[in-house]
Amino acid sequence: MIPGPGIARTPLPEGFLASGLNSGVRRYRPDVGLLVSEVPCLGVGVFTRNTFKAAPVRYCESLLPSNRIRAIITNSGQANAATGERGERTNIQMVQAVADALGCLPSQVLAASTGPIGVQLEIEKIIAVVPELVARQGKSAESFALAILTTDLVPKTVSTVLELSHGSIRITGICKGSGMIHPHMATMLGYIVTDAGIESAVAEGMLRSVTDRTFNMISVDGESSTNDCVFLLANGASGVQVENAEDKAKFENALFHVSAVLAQSIARDGEGATKLLEVRVTGAPDIRFARTAARSLVVSPLVKTAMHGGDPNWGRIVARLGGEELPREILELLKLKIQDVAIFDSGAPLDIDLERLRLLLREDTIRIAIDCKSGEHEATAWGCDLSKKYVEINAEYLT
Amino acid sequence: MIPGPGIARTPLPEGFLASGLNSGVRRYRPDVGLLVSEVPCLGVGVFTRNTFKAAPVRYCESLLPSNRIRAIITNSGQANAATGERGERTNIQMVQAVADALGCLPSQVLAASTGPIGVQLEIEKIIAVVPELVARQGKSAESFALAILTTDLVPKTVSTVLELSHGSIRITGICKGSGMIHPHMATMLGYIVTDAGIESAVAEGMLRSVTDRTFNMISVDGESSTNDCVFLLANGASGVQVENAEDKAKFENALFHVSAVLAQSIARDGEGATKLLEVRVTGAPDIRFARTAARSLVVSPLVKTAMHGGDPNWGRIVARLGGEELPREILELLKLKIQDVAIFDSGAPLDIDLERLRLLLREDTIRIAIDCKSGEHEATAWGCDLSKKYVEINAEYLT
Repeated sequence: MIPGPGIARTPLPEGFLASGLNSGVRRYRPDVGLLVSEVPCLGVGVFTRNTFKAAPVRYCESLLPSNRIRAIITNSGQANAATGERGERTNIQMVQAVADALGCLPSQVLAASTGPIGVQLEIEKIIAVVPELVARQGKSAESFALAILTTDLVPKTVSTVLELSHGSIRITGICKGSGMIHPHMATMLGYIVTDAGIESAVAEGMLRSVTDRTFNMISVDGESSTNDCVFLLANGASGVQVENAEDKAKFENALFHVSAVLAQSIARDGEGATKLLEVRVTGAPDIRFARTAARSLVVSPLVKTAMHGGDPNWGRIVARLGGEELPREILELLKLKIQDVAIFDSGAPLDIDLERLRLLLREDTIRIAIDCKSGEHEATAWGCDLSKKYVEINAEYLT
Repeated sequence: MIPGPGIARTPLPEGFLASGLNSGVRRYRPDVGLLVSEVPCLGVGVFTRNTFKAAPVRYCESLLPSNRIRAIITNSGQANAATGERGERTNIQMVQAVADALGCLPSQVLAASTGPIGVQLEIEKIIAVVPELVARQGKSAESFALAILTTDLVPKTVSTVLELSHGSIRITGICKGSGMIHPHMATMLGYIVTDAGIESAVAEGMLRSVTDRTFNMISVDGESSTNDCVFLLANGASGVQVENAEDKAKFENALFHVSAVLAQSIARDGEGATKLLEVRVTGAPDIRFARTAARSLVVSPLVKTAMHGGDPNWGRIVARLGGEELPREILELLKLKIQDVAIFDSGAPLDIDLERLRLLLREDTIRIAIDCKSGEHEATAWGCDLSKKYVEINAEYLT
């Protein structure tokens, strides 16, 4: 078997279609994507906590949850954030164009945007390609996944089939990330679609819980975006309902794994990244402590540059934890391991082989483990190293 | 008048002497400095809030305030932080060596260290040069200012003469900065010495207040250090006491200006910096709001890289402010100016000449002004741009 050219295909669940193409807002790359459910479906979402929410974020927040969703349109190249009343109007125009083409109400169409902040949408270009987006709808996720990228190097999709009590269902996830990644309550752009049927409140609860453990635990640069959102659409087209406790647990677990894969793929493809950082905090007295400690290290420029250089400068890890407002008596107990090598314990350095550690730091995934010896709570955060390429990308983004 | 070779001389106040030399801990550069008061003097300090305080920080905190201080010894190249009990012992050995050489008690000698964290002091090398440090004492600040530098490119000193009711006094400030700069209640290493006489509680109150408005308002990389401290020594050698309300106000004002100059010099010499960023927030409802908003921008990697590239991507400024936990109703009113050009007001972008702004961003000081239109409080923060050089320096620091 010789694989064909191009990227592997990620199937969408029953009754979902997707497409993406170039509208001329960006020079060459696809910049508008459309994700459609053939029948009205459940839609729930979690959104950024940033005060300056983009127009499409405010619009979706006011609409969801809803049992009547038909589509999500997404443009890349202009974020429609900090764009005032004109931004509200262009967002509605974008939604209306999709509703017209699909023959549904505007309130059945969601929208998301990503790109530079403070730039008005070139709405005429986007509207002009909507009929072709509808005409080109297909059964796999790639064209949509490509259209939503900004500085991402690779499209990010995952799909899994799950056996439940009354039959099998599919969950497919698509996301984009790369820069301005430090989700707070919600995240980057994420789309999870399933052909299972599920109750709105149950779906919303699961999405929040899973997001807190996955998308909300990654950071590329500590910058919270104005446009973060994760959508979960469930259209029931498989004929299988997620109802009993066992199926709910299975479904939430699958949702967690889909989200974790997407979240890690964002961290690994962070702007300029060459390595994935995984920070696992165990033995914490509460979940806030565990999450704060884990996230503090994936946002630390000194930890991120050291890992970039493969420099075993572990003192920066200890200093960063000490700089967070965490209880002193617990920090003074902690044991630190890097790549499974114990480095520091109970306030003092251990005798280590720096040269061996230096070799282990050449791997493309760096694992930092912190045991607080103070309880049963744990959290994992993902991030990436900080390279010269990050500076290059962001010193020249708008221009 | 032709200035001589080398750096300009910064005089010390009456009764203070300083020296610095290489002990062999660092390969070529001076790495141990000694600052001496000929008579016992008042010493007060403010220190880092980092949980993993270095051994010398814990030592000085337990000692100050004191009216019997004779000297501060400082080594660069090893921070003596996260070094356990052995670090406590080597710190005391360093202090004892100075006490022996000066013929005073160890409790009259302060200590500070800077360099990589988690590395034990090479105490024998340091002790060996203490007699020569005492022999080489001189009346200017340069040799000491050079010995305390790490990745700093330039020594940082300032000196001013102040006329008070009963005569003139001098205040001289010396500091180092560069990386791991995000002071929290205290800061980097700073030394301010004066030949005025002043009461301990008054001096301590002034130092805290001034530090909050100067050193605590700078950031290079958002990283709080384990070794931050600012010392104020006052030996009364001028014969002039700071007593009446008018003199106190004058003295605090001079202390503010000395600290502000040092703080800005640290920001401008941040690791890899090519530009100084100055963020001024006015019209804030309270001081916490003003300080949080101002500091948030000087730690933002996306604002810092945009300013590095001279990229007028002002949307990142708005997004960062929105990502802080500040009241929405106030953020929605704000007016943003860059280099005195009004850009964004009350939630919507203004019509601006991007090409003109791009030209203004080539200047070596970038001024960002935010008027919150919601009160009388204000704050200024200083930082620097983020360049590829920062990554280069920090990917290879320990090795």
